[in-house]
Amino acid sequence: MRSKCYTPEGIAVTPGRIAGLVTEFARFGALPGGGVSRLCASAADGDARNRLTELLRQAGAEIRIDAVGNQFGLFRLKADSTEPAGMMGSHLDSQPRGGRVDGTMGVMAALEVAERLMEAKRKGHRFQRDFCVVNWTNEEGARFRPSLMGSGVFAGHYKEETILAVRDDNGITLADALSDIGYKGIDAAPPMPAFYLELHAEQGARLERSERQIGLVTGNWGAAKFDVAFHGEQAHTGPTPMAERRDALLAASRTVVALRELADTKPHKLHTSVGRLLVSPNSSNVVPDRVDLSAEVRSPDDDILVQAEKALQKVIEEAAAISHTTVSFASRSLRLARPLPGDFVDLLEDCSRAIGIPAMRLDTISGHDALSLIGLCPTALVFVPSVGGIAHNEAEFTRPDDMDAGATLMLEAAFRLCSEADFSLHSEKRGEVA
Amino acid sequence: MRSKCYTPEGIAVTPGRIAGLVTEFARFGALPGGGVSRLCASAADGDARNRLTELLRQAGAEIRIDAVGNQFGLFRLKADSTEPAGMMGSHLDSQPRGGRVDGTMGVMAALEVAERLMEAKRKGHRFQRDFCVVNWTNEEGARFRPSLMGSGVFAGHYKEETILAVRDDNGITLADALSDIGYKGIDAAPPMPAFYLELHAEQGARLERSERQIGLVTGNWGAAKFDVAFHGEQAHTGPTPMAERRDALLAASRTVVALRELADTKPHKLHTSVGRLLVSPNSSNVVPDRVDLSAEVRSPDDDILVQAEKALQKVIEEAAAISHTTVSFASRSLRLARPLPGDFVDLLEDCSRAIGIPAMRLDTISGHDALSLIGLCPTALVFVPSVGGIAHNEAEFTRPDDMDAGATLMLEAAFRLCSEADFSLHSEKRGEVA
Repeated sequence: MRSKCYTPEGIAVTPGRIAGLVTEFARFGALPGGGVSRLCASAADGDARNRLTELLRQAGAEIRIDAVGNQFGLFRLKADSTEPAGMMGSHLDSQPRGGRVDGTMGVMAALEVAERLMEAKRKGHRFQRDFCVVNWTNEEGARFRPSLMGSGVFAGHYKEETILAVRDDNGITLADALSDIGYKGIDAAPPMPAFYLELHAEQGARLERSERQIGLVTGNWGAAKFDVAFHGEQAHTGPTPMAERRDALLAASRTVVALRELADTKPHKLHTSVGRLLVSPNSSNVVPDRVDLSAEVRSPDDDILVQAEKALQKVIEEAAAISHTTVSFASRSLRLARPLPGDFVDLLEDCSRAIGIPAMRLDTISGHDALSLIGLCPTALVFVPSVGGIAHNEAEFTRPDDMDAGATLMLEAAFRLCSEADFSLHSEKRGEVA
Repeated sequence: MRSKCYTPEGIAVTPGRIAGLVTEFARFGALPGGGVSRLCASAADGDARNRLTELLRQAGAEIRIDAVGNQFGLFRLKADSTEPAGMMGSHLDSQPRGGRVDGTMGVMAALEVAERLMEAKRKGHRFQRDFCVVNWTNEEGARFRPSLMGSGVFAGHYKEETILAVRDDNGITLADALSDIGYKGIDAAPPMPAFYLELHAEQGARLERSERQIGLVTGNWGAAKFDVAFHGEQAHTGPTPMAERRDALLAASRTVVALRELADTKPHKLHTSVGRLLVSPNSSNVVPDRVDLSAEVRSPDDDILVQAEKALQKVIEEAAAISHTTVSFASRSLRLARPLPGDFVDLLEDCSRAIGIPAMRLDTISGHDALSLIGLCPTALVFVPSVGGIAHNEAEFTRPDDMDAGATLMLEAAFRLCSEADFSLHSEKRGEVA
């Protein structure tokens, strides 16, 4: 049974435009392999942000940049609205050799939805609230950790000062990096929105295998992440007796191997990884005196996650001890598995019926900015397929018509939610989020 | 029984001067911890070379820079000599966070010996051959691998073109790096010398434990070194199923751990290390698709060494296979354990008796430029103590009077060897050196 479609006749997502914009933005930090390197607050990120500002202004938005560089484009859909606006967006930053789609598609889809809402307003549609497009700072957590920084500050999970003082591996603070590209803003962030929508590539192959264009995210895997440093003693690899060595790389390597073995204790229920590891002084005939690494465990089950976090800490401490090194924990973060609001998932499912594109429900293993807002406003996260499930790789690709399908769903949802004066869907209390 | 001292009355090493020069040179690439970062062909290396050129010229030397940047200072001790000169030296390059003593002391000692020989000539002593001070390019093998590059090319173990084409981790060739600092020379290297002497800090604690100032090196440990790259597949650390990951860092870590275990199979007879490891793209939530590492095994016993080299290769290949990655071997080198010429060690021991400073015999586990010349000319390598056995560390220190003791021995040996017309000590045939 098809539901009623609220998007008016004649208002529709421009076919192929989102894919076109994604392609255009791929020139910011372009890599030879077709991907992008657009680390948070890099020059390329600055260029991409400037182009987004230009596009938002052309579409009629008022631009706000907050203290951590979150970039908001406010579209006035209702004159003198006192209601909180609706919000939709994602992020423009990428991994060091990331794909072109990732968060960029979600920002471009938000821009397209905003333009279509503005078009409807011009054609006489009466909205009950405004709409805001957002590009969150440092979703990736590549150059600066933790991830989900901008949305995390907006949501109140992190203090602004703490986040601005975070340093990259070259010792540059986020504050300085944002200043360098002109995005350490002075504007107040908008108030907590009436709702938050995010469209993202799946970064997995469940949609593809199920031959669905749309995935409605019902919850997230939890994740525990540690940044640690092993401290040994610098020495010559030749004459230094093996028993006297305090090898930081050996401790780190033991951690990587033991952490991989940990995943096998809970098949399909526990993912473990070390993606980042820096050796110092990193010379072939010098025993390393310091290794920094980032380790993580992820699980859909909070009991498994919490146990795995403890096991990870034990793995690290034991690896340090048997290698005659010490270890310091630079930072740690814990995100528990949480459901997204069920009635909002139901609403999105009704929208999918209205537009005639069937959706499936799934969870998300990767983190997304939408997760920062769970419990603070009604939040929906929608996936479209990644070809081959590829993510964080230059070969990442999402078909243009899948992007349009996702954006069409978002447009329908935004139309409904911005047209209702008494919109109060599931007004959740601000809850505890680690 | 004290032997006859050939160094004439009134000619002696200037007390404390070598330590003073080592301190002066520590400003080139100075680090806050008292050490130096003077990577081969870096700006700091260029500055140190320029200062050495100045000092050599002031002392009356003629400077030659060969195609791989070896820096020679020829001192004319005998008018129109047709005999090959004697040679003494070491290297000015350092590890990324190296000590100030390491090779620098050996170059400064050679300069001091040359100046004293020139002083004796001015005072009427008649020499039978010239003397040459040398600063070899890239002994360390830190920025460019393999180590012992300059002396290796001089000795004919490496082709000049091959070595000039070697790239650092930023893709810069040795040829370009030398050009940048003005040390891609056009002079012919001097002919194979009549003898080669090298003074070096021990980089171990055997002299200190034995309370000796001088160690006469009788042979070297062999070393086998591999530069390898593991190739996996870049993916998201969140959603990518564990079984589908091709994690290059996991393969590398398994190699580090297994290589450490290999050392335990031959206690005190086998040293194994991984000092250098580069992860790509090196982001906390990306499965690494490439890890480059340098691995080495060292042993005083060639049978153990050759077995360990095979075991290392197996370790690497197995680590790659069980991690669903592939491995490529970028370079490999093998240096077998070889004795230094025994009659030359005897001569140095006689010199130590002549100057009244008792010496002990020992082997060297670390590689030194002198090893490049074994079998090509009579070669002696002499150690003075490293306090605490510390090496490749900013805290490396050799006491000034130990430096003077070593230089006094070298001066006595140089006097003897440059004063004999028919010097033909153990004229070894050019042998096979891997």
